[in-house]
Amino acid sequence: MSDPQELQVTKRSKLRRLPKRGSQERELIYSILDEALVAHVGFITDNQPFVIPMAYGRTGDRLYLHGSSVSRLLKTLEQGVDVCFTVTLLDGLVIARSLFHHSMNYRSVVLFGKAKLVVSETDKMAALRAFTEQMLPGRWEDARLPNSQELKATNVLSFSIEEGSAKVRTGHPSDDAKDYALPIWAGQLPLNLTAGTPIPDSQLSPDIILPENLTHYGRGR
Amino acid sequence: MSDPQELQVTKRSKLRRLPKRGSQERELIYSILDEALVAHVGFITDNQPFVIPMAYGRTGDRLYLHGSSVSRLLKTLEQGVDVCFTVTLLDGLVIARSLFHHSMNYRSVVLFGKAKLVVSETDKMAALRAFTEQMLPGRWEDARLPNSQELKATNVLSFSIEEGSAKVRTGHPSDDAKDYALPIWAGQLPLNLTAGTPIPDSQLSPDIILPENLTHYGRGR
Repeated sequence: MSDPQELQVTKRSKLRRLPKRGSQERELIYSILDEALVAHVGFITDNQPFVIPMAYGRTGDRLYLHGSSVSRLLKTLEQGVDVCFTVTLLDGLVIARSLFHHSMNYRSVVLFGKAKLVVSETDKMAALRAFTEQMLPGRWEDARLPNSQELKATNVLSFSIEEGSAKVRTGHPSDDAKDYALPIWAGQLPLNLTAGTPIPDSQLSPDIILPENLTHYGRGR
Repeated sequence: MSDPQELQVTKRSKLRRLPKRGSQERELIYSILDEALVAHVGFITDNQPFVIPMAYGRTGDRLYLHGSSVSRLLKTLEQGVDVCFTVTLLDGLVIARSLFHHSMNYRSVVLFGKAKLVVSETDKMAALRAFTEQMLPGRWEDARLPNSQELKATNVLSFSIEEGSAKVRTGHPSDDAKDYALPIWAGQLPLNLTAGTPIPDSQLSPDIILPENLTHYGRGR
């Protein structure tokens, strides 16, 4: 049996390049999945690879995707085709003395599996809640919840976090020994996804105040 | 002949869902490609879709990828397999009165084609220059350039921007008419990738000053 704290290492999830940067630890994988907002979902249709950006949510060892019940993308995924689910957080530029050693600091997760249609209304509501909390914690309490017509128009897919890995690069560049003497600046430039000032809807009544989860919004660690 | 200002519309690049958000305009596609730093590159190996985050560069109608000449990923791509090249810029959260109409503002590009190995040393250097300029404009002049050994250890792939599309969502939520009367905040929360304070390498001599392209770094429009 596989370690419940770590994902399985399989042929397709084994890291070949720079395996020291890789990890199968669930805790790390979950922290990356929870910080990101958009996944890049890969699948095959007619022998052609497609990569589509999608929002998602997580509860425990399950990821949730959703979309219109008439979407071709959703219809393809719910057939149980093989999916590659990739999430990347860009943490900074790595500026070396030599161009060769320039790099980026990042945390990424690549998962493999098949998506399954969520059928029961209760499970769909729970998945949509996870989806909402991923985007904006607390919003489930503030907004008007989905009615049965909206629920019917939304297909929810679940994806089990079983197979895959995280990959992380942190820290300074590693230049060639002799290049450290060059008079060239080197180091890191941190990058962050930051929230700007909320823009009220043009039809918003002026007496409706901004909820607190939008005044201090951040994705960071 | 196809319009040189617009990419071809083909079976695999035709937008089915919300086509009004789509575009084949080269100018828009290039602006998105030039602002982003990481692409999600999809390909098939043993009937399995893979999606891998990669840095890239652009010159005219060509994208460049690169990696170690011993990388399995590069070796797969240079065989001329079908590739899906996707770039996503997340511009903000769209906060509606109903959960159903929550969304994100984004600009994305999805391209289809095959990658080709760049063979000549001159072309490889030009590609690496494009690659460097994508990450940090001006760095080509500041850093130590690749020597012939480093050039040999680096494989460069080129990918022609011919087939695909951009998709863009901007602006406020569109709630159901009757929901506009609800006492719920709605609007947009802008999101931006912003640079923090540069961190000098731990072995950097204190008399080396920070280049200007790192003091005012920004990806924004």
